Amino acid sequence: MFKKILIANRGEIALRVIRTCREIGVKTVAVYSTADAESLHVRFADEAVCIGPPSSTDSYLNMQAILAAAEITNADAIHPGYGFLAENAKFSKLCEEHGIKFIGATDEMISRMGDKASARETMKAAGVPTIPGSEGILETFEECEKLADEMGFPVMLKATAGGGGKGMRAVWDRKDLKELWDGARQEAFACFGNDGMYLEKLIEEPRHIEIQVIGDSFGKACHLSERDCSIQRRHQKLTEEAPSPFMTVALRKKMGEAAVKAAEYIKYEGAGTVEFLVDKHKNFYFMEMNTRIQVEHPITEQVIDYDLIYEQIKVAAGVPISGKNYLPKLHSIECRINAEDPFNGFRPSPGKITVLHTPGGHGVRVDSHVYAGYTIPPNYDSMIAKLITTAQTREEAISKMRRALDEFVIEGVKTTIPFHRQLMDNADYLSGNYTTKFMEDFVLEGKE
Amino acid sequence: MFKKILIANRGEIALRVIRTCREIGVKTVAVYSTADAESLHVRFADEAVCIGPPSSTDSYLNMQAILAAAEITNADAIHPGYGFLAENAKFSKLCEEHGIKFIGATDEMISRMGDKASARETMKAAGVPTIPGSEGILETFEECEKLADEMGFPVMLKATAGGGGKGMRAVWDRKDLKELWDGARQEAFACFGNDGMYLEKLIEEPRHIEIQVIGDSFGKACHLSERDCSIQRRHQKLTEEAPSPFMTVALRKKMGEAAVKAAEYIKYEGAGTVEFLVDKHKNFYFMEMNTRIQVEHPITEQVIDYDLIYEQIKVAAGVPISGKNYLPKLHSIECRINAEDPFNGFRPSPGKITVLHTPGGHGVRVDSHVYAGYTIPPNYDSMIAKLITTAQTREEAISKMRRALDEFVIEGVKTTIPFHRQLMDNADYLSGNYTTKFMEDFVLEGKE
Repeated sequence: MFKKILIANRGEIALRVIRTCREIGVKTVAVYSTADAESLHVRFADEAVCIGPPSSTDSYLNMQAILAAAEITNADAIHPGYGFLAENAKFSKLCEEHGIKFIGATDEMISRMGDKASARETMKAAGVPTIPGSEGILETFEECEKLADEMGFPVMLKATAGGGGKGMRAVWDRKDLKELWDGARQEAFACFGNDGMYLEKLIEEPRHIEIQVIGDSFGKACHLSERDCSIQRRHQKLTEEAPSPFMTVALRKKMGEAAVKAAEYIKYEGAGTVEFLVDKHKNFYFMEMNTRIQVEHPITEQVIDYDLIYEQIKVAAGVPISGKNYLPKLHSIECRINAEDPFNGFRPSPGKITVLHTPGGHGVRVDSHVYAGYTIPPNYDSMIAKLITTAQTREEAISKMRRALDEFVIEGVKTTIPFHRQLMDNADYLSGNYTTKFMEDFVLEGKE
Repeated sequence: MFKKILIANRGEIALRVIRTCREIGVKTVAVYSTADAESLHVRFADEAVCIGPPSSTDSYLNMQAILAAAEITNADAIHPGYGFLAENAKFSKLCEEHGIKFIGATDEMISRMGDKASARETMKAAGVPTIPGSEGILETFEECEKLADEMGFPVMLKATAGGGGKGMRAVWDRKDLKELWDGARQEAFACFGNDGMYLEKLIEEPRHIEIQVIGDSFGKACHLSERDCSIQRRHQKLTEEAPSPFMTVALRKKMGEAAVKAAEYIKYEGAGTVEFLVDKHKNFYFMEMNTRIQVEHPITEQVIDYDLIYEQIKVAAGVPISGKNYLPKLHSIECRINAEDPFNGFRPSPGKITVLHTPGGHGVRVDSHVYAGYTIPPNYDSMIAKLITTAQTREEAISKMRRALDEFVIEGVKTTIPFHRQLMDNADYLSGNYTTKFMEDFVLEGKE
């Protein structure tokens, strides 16, 4: 087992990793930008190293500074959390070269699954269903147009380096194809320095259902059932639940097997998530694989009594997994509480939290790095807390979420709490009958 | 189901009941003394009625004021929480007479089990093992002396109306009997207005292990396994765990069956706890039955996925129980965080909480009614939070408790957090090999 783990991240996920490390007796090193000096991850780690100014490029993305911090503090492993360097093949490789274990995927796996076109090819080869579409990158617009005509509209244009909805366009009509193609390429180049595009059949009424997997260094993988992440705004997940209300025992078995097949095919090591789109006929298609811990991992932990961070650390340390799959025993929902104003287009609302009261009691979990008096810096992600409720049934988990949201008091900044509170009363949400298009029709009531 | 429940209590248990009511869609009425106007139970209830000045006698024990509040607000049930009127037969009877459902035991059950001598007789009749001792109340000191001689020392003197260690004396030597008899009687009279005494064999190296039961209005009862509450200071529980590290499958079966037998014998309705002393040979003896929810009920909820407050409400509303018993699936520990100074004889430390940061994350539950800026009144119980950790194993639950205690920040008042933190490193505690005498030898290190 590792003696000391450096956490190359900030916010709640840094604290989340520190919590498990404390529980299992592994020392921790926090790294922080000057904007995060007062952060709880700095306070609760055994050691903390300042790695640069607020800009992520100069701090949390600064590989040299982070590796230097690991060497100075004698850390024998690095946990990258999510975002920042979590899926950076070069960083994974650099860690290996420095003799520091990267608690995540190898550079080869990251490269293979991080590039969407190559991931799709790999999954096809592994026998996992993928969305019908182009074989690799489209060289020209003409090629794109020809294929779209063959598949029939609607289609989806996607940047091979894309993520978070950038470089992605739904095309419903042939006449819009050229304009959207150009726009997507430009956006992809601006965001990722790579304008390679591919084309897919657009899945109508899709649900985003992902399977959590974990693989060990002996080539064995298992799945930990699904999370439904269909409630998204501009491809950003807002709330997630496990199990999916759309799931059946048979579909879970099929999707779970496909995810395990995907992981074992690439000899995947670590915790990963295989994201699928599921259409209304319960056909499922591989979308992408995230080779890291997900924001929404706690709902899986809640429904199967499992510490995913500990499992990540164990497999990174060479411990084999048991190989059995895990089925949900409870129902769990996560609401991402962001410092954003839901009444004004979810505009970020950084600033000082003047009053904070977190909900508690039976079936309530809060993962958060903030406290009363904490100033949310404008430089990073606006998520300030994850509120998770767990109960025997979906209805009970929703009731619990309602009362927990009612108890949650955050003053000084705007938050998405009012959005989530209204969501928990929405008829379509309550019915469980929602798709990734849900937010397009959702109208927030009132004025705050 | 009830439409509106009045909670005749304050603090965390009032909030605990409100939480479940909100979750199941039942309206709530809080009552409060003028000292508690700023309390969270007042804030989170649908309605709130001030019932008197700070003194409990004039507020939380003021039956007329509470019944009037229930009638004014049209509450159809009263949940008494624990303490105050929770085991007051007269109040239970008054509720019934006013057509308001008392969510607890009937006056008859309370009378029968509340009086220790009568409870003991009842349990003997039900075939539940009791501690060898006097048959009913001792009329004279001579009778006491004669019986003590027959049983052999050590013996235990107990006030029939006693509780919380009042009117209770261990007698290790015949020569001390008279003095301790006089002292215990005086104390019992001062505390309870009743100096009736009885005598029991003193159980050496005892553990306090209690079985949670629940009975319905059809005479059926089940058990929800045990809690170990042996870590006590002057008969006040400090920390509890479920399951007991001393328990075996065979002993749980025997104790569970005895507790169910006890409950069914008296046709017990509601949630109740049968407290046993267990000696080192795993013999168990009925100690008392609490005809109410216990402070430490969350650890049972955690290990069996159950909402005990909801179950109380359901059986009070006439819903039958399934009848099956529940076995622990996880391990859970509760630390009672009191506003007391553990470095100064656990002296109460009321006052204003200036800074509050509650722990969170995987497996951590906090039940608390306090917030930053809240002033703890000196008039009541000093418990300000219950910190509960739950994990697959006892070792993991302890590790989780350590890190959660380390994260818990309460400034402005002294708390028992440092005591619990040291307890979690104590070799005897870690071994699970502790008795109710544990605190007699425990020495707190450092100075705060």
